[in-house]
Amino acid sequence: MKYTVQQIADALDAEFQGDASLVVHAAAEPSDATATDLAMAMSPKYAEDLGSGSAQVAILWEGADWQALGLKAAIFVRRPRMAMAGITSMLDKGQGFGSGVHPSAVIDPTADVANGVSIGPLAVIGARARVGRGANIGPHCVIGMDAVLGEDAVLREMVSIGARVQIGDRFIAQPGARIGSDGFSFVTPEVSGVENARKTLGDAGDASAQSWLRIHSLGSVEIGDDVEIGANCTIDNGTIRNTRIGNGTKLDNQVHIGHNTRVGNDCLLCGQSGISGSVELGNNVVLGGQSGVSDNIFVGDRVIVGGGTKILSNVPAGRVLMGYPAVKMETFTDVYKAQRRLPRMLRDVEALKKAVSKQPPSD
Amino acid sequence: MKYTVQQIADALDAEFQGDASLVVHAAAEPSDATATDLAMAMSPKYAEDLGSGSAQVAILWEGADWQALGLKAAIFVRRPRMAMAGITSMLDKGQGFGSGVHPSAVIDPTADVANGVSIGPLAVIGARARVGRGANIGPHCVIGMDAVLGEDAVLREMVSIGARVQIGDRFIAQPGARIGSDGFSFVTPEVSGVENARKTLGDAGDASAQSWLRIHSLGSVEIGDDVEIGANCTIDNGTIRNTRIGNGTKLDNQVHIGHNTRVGNDCLLCGQSGISGSVELGNNVVLGGQSGVSDNIFVGDRVIVGGGTKILSNVPAGRVLMGYPAVKMETFTDVYKAQRRLPRMLRDVEALKKAVSKQPPSD
Amino acid sequence: MKYTVQQIADALDAEFQGDASLVVHAAAEPSDATATDLAMAMSPKYAEDLGSGSAQVAILWEGADWQALGLKAAIFVRRPRMAMAGITSMLDKGQGFGSGVHPSAVIDPTADVANGVSIGPLAVIGARARVGRGANIGPHCVIGMDAVLGEDAVLREMVSIGARVQIGDRFIAQPGARIGSDGFSFVTPEVSGVENARKTLGDAGDASAQSWLRIHSLGSVEIGDDVEIGANCTIDNGTIRNTRIGNGTKLDNQVHIGHNTRVGNDCLLCGQSGISGSVELGNNVVLGGQSGVSDNIFVGDRVIVGGGTKILSNVPAGRVLMGYPAVKMETFTDVYKAQRRLPRMLRDVEALKKAVSKQPPSD
Repeated sequence: MKYTVQQIADALDAEFQGDASLVVHAAAEPSDATATDLAMAMSPKYAEDLGSGSAQVAILWEGADWQALGLKAAIFVRRPRMAMAGITSMLDKGQGFGSGVHPSAVIDPTADVANGVSIGPLAVIGARARVGRGANIGPHCVIGMDAVLGEDAVLREMVSIGARVQIGDRFIAQPGARIGSDGFSFVTPEVSGVENARKTLGDAGDASAQSWLRIHSLGSVEIGDDVEIGANCTIDNGTIRNTRIGNGTKLDNQVHIGHNTRVGNDCLLCGQSGISGSVELGNNVVLGGQSGVSDNIFVGDRVIVGGGTKILSNVPAGRVLMGYPAVKMETFTDVYKAQRRLPRMLRDVEALKKAVSKQPPSD
Repeated sequence: MKYTVQQIADALDAEFQGDASLVVHAAAEPSDATATDLAMAMSPKYAEDLGSGSAQVAILWEGADWQALGLKAAIFVRRPRMAMAGITSMLDKGQGFGSGVHPSAVIDPTADVANGVSIGPLAVIGARARVGRGANIGPHCVIGMDAVLGEDAVLREMVSIGARVQIGDRFIAQPGARIGSDGFSFVTPEVSGVENARKTLGDAGDASAQSWLRIHSLGSVEIGDDVEIGANCTIDNGTIRNTRIGNGTKLDNQVHIGHNTRVGNDCLLCGQSGISGSVELGNNVVLGGQSGVSDNIFVGDRVIVGGGTKILSNVPAGRVLMGYPAVKMETFTDVYKAQRRLPRMLRDVEALKKAVSKQPPSD
Repeated sequence: MKYTVQQIADALDAEFQGDASLVVHAAAEPSDATATDLAMAMSPKYAEDLGSGSAQVAILWEGADWQALGLKAAIFVRRPRMAMAGITSMLDKGQGFGSGVHPSAVIDPTADVANGVSIGPLAVIGARARVGRGANIGPHCVIGMDAVLGEDAVLREMVSIGARVQIGDRFIAQPGARIGSDGFSFVTPEVSGVENARKTLGDAGDASAQSWLRIHSLGSVEIGDDVEIGANCTIDNGTIRNTRIGNGTKLDNQVHIGHNTRVGNDCLLCGQSGISGSVELGNNVVLGGQSGVSDNIFVGDRVIVGGGTKILSNVPAGRVLMGYPAVKMETFTDVYKAQRRLPRMLRDVEALKKAVSKQPPSD
């Protein structure tokens, strides 16, 4: 993997100055950079460290004095993280899972695998499953019966895709992602304590102890194009209809999506967040790490939710929320500040009560 | 998979009207239903959509006017979710893992696998492990040395069961479930900051920095009958005794059970909930999503806990709890409402203090 | 596995009395102990149960009257959990993964596997990966291209280690641990609602809906010596530099570590805790279960954090924290107590306002 300064600048559609023919093999932080690394010094703070490394070329902010930094060439970027997307995509060495179908893979004769698909050691492809052109399936993946995987998929090792799951193009799944586990849906023969407690908001009533009967998942999971699913995520099958993830949505590691839930397009669900069953999540929603959404809830478009937030009721579009239960971010901040003054306020109120009670009542 | 209206009504022990011989192949939501689907229209709200689909037969609520809905037959149910359990069980197409032992499975010659057990591609069965009649073991499962798996188990792909784990009959495990990981138990040679902080509720003292020594797990995991474990769950081995899960208990995805913990019968542990080590959980306990139980805690029978709740101390039987730390649901609601008025109350108290201080003190 | 009382006492560097030649095969709780078990009765409370078991030898506290307890021998320990570390290490029967390289393992011819390493069925070792002396690699593990695994590693089943990951000596990984998944890092072409909301603490602004571009992970993961990673944990690759876990650090099950994050030495991260990207965690930090650390945060040495705590800002060394957002443990306790009195205080303040308003204003 080798690129000239010219090639990188062209790919990023960025200006450069200095030696266009300088070659880089990899990216590095300024202080770690060797002479063949492209140093990532997108702000003056990072550029300070260029001196302790050996970079000859760096990514810099617009207007930076590259010569003063001792470089032979520099590429100038306006929005550093956008440049990161371009550069890291070019320089990604990947997992090296190889090409072709490994002889140890177990592929059902009725599976429809496009020509040129790469399938790693010990992967299993089920009956009538379809795998689109350009897919790269890691070792130990399992693709279930009648599942459909679009073009140019990248599955890291040990991804499992259940029967009948349908996935669009350019899908990425990190190790251990589980798509199409059965939904968590049980019922008791008679009304249960949980049903009572939900109805009364707190009273379990006198429901007797009962065992749980299983509601099977007849639905599956439908995933759009350009979706990424993180390591050890779990996405449950729907009960009757399919659980759905919209185009362009990205899930971080250990995210959980319950049965029947529909996640919109271009959402970002951060690490360990969880969505219960039968939730509607709009488009461009961002859920912070370890946040949660209660079942049967509606969350509107462009809602943004801070880390640890638990959404227990419907949220209109465009809200920014935080807390348990979720409230508007500014309410959360106000309440939080007030809370810390609470112990003192308690003492104040006690003092006030004493002071006032010593004055003659006016009625 | 085909059933007549008569067969489904019989299986559900339900009344029906109309053409008893109509055949359905699958279940569908009313608006998606084709002529061979059984439409799920258990309430008037859902029945409205029958017109936009092509269903000829539907599940309806008792007393519904099926003919006015344009159907040729209808099955009437009293408790819709109970009917769902029956119908989805009949119509579940499963994962199609096939029958018999796949030639790529690696089965120790000393393993005791009942006749007719189905074992998927690349599964591994360890030395002296016992697998009961009727088990259906998915691809890539690993069953450890001396483990015991009861009759009629269904293991989805990539389930791992550690050495010496004992599991009852009719066990279901979703993809990536881990049973019998080692407990998380470490000790420092001298008293540690954590021990100090727990004793003093907040003061880590002057304990010096130390490394951790591992306490191995000599115990294993014991699981009753009719238990289901969700995708990517983790259940740790006990230290000396076994960790235990009672009969009929169901775990959703990504649930964690610590070492030595005993979970009672017929509990429901929702997604991403976690129980620390050495906890006693009673029977018929329901833990909401992302809830947690601190270590060495006792939680009584029939306790119900809302999503996100963190239980930090013992809970008597029958309580309904919510919050962090967990309090009674009604306390949680009261405190929550009061909190939102907190910033204003702060201002009120300040104003009161001013007002009162301007009056001559009476003592 | 058989040891005499003498051998165990010697290994623990502990005093014993009675028959030095008595042989034990396993450890047990006092009430479950058979005649060949070593009963764990480290405190008078546990010793009470010796009578209901058949133990002939027990671990007791210093000064215990072993003869009155009906034993033939006793070993006396000062710090019971330290003794547990020693005893459980001696008596651990392990997973029995066998020795040598299983013929079904798929090992790249360019991999460098030390002599005598044990590799389980269906494990995959990638190109140029190096596995040190004494490693015990479980069934279904995947070790990526160019990864390095130090000496004496123990990998349970289904562990995955990505390309270029570097791990020190005496590494332990529980089932389903994922090391080297790609970081969760995305960017929109123009400023996004999240960026606005973070800057303004709550206002998403009028950013238009956009799709996410992927920032690839060029870095990998670097893990020190004596590290243990729990079942179904996920550790992400760094973007440019490596994500790092220091020597002696232990992760419980389902812990998540984001990209670029550096965890210090001898930390203890309890079940389902999560650390976002680009966090610096000091040495000897303890994170309670289900706690979380926001991205780009600094957490000092010896910080201890209770279960469920969410750290949203930098924490100086030595602090003991709890809550969401995290505050000092004693503040948490004070606020919690005050909160429960909040509904009543609201009523008090209303009453005060009425009482005071009926008095003539003094200004």
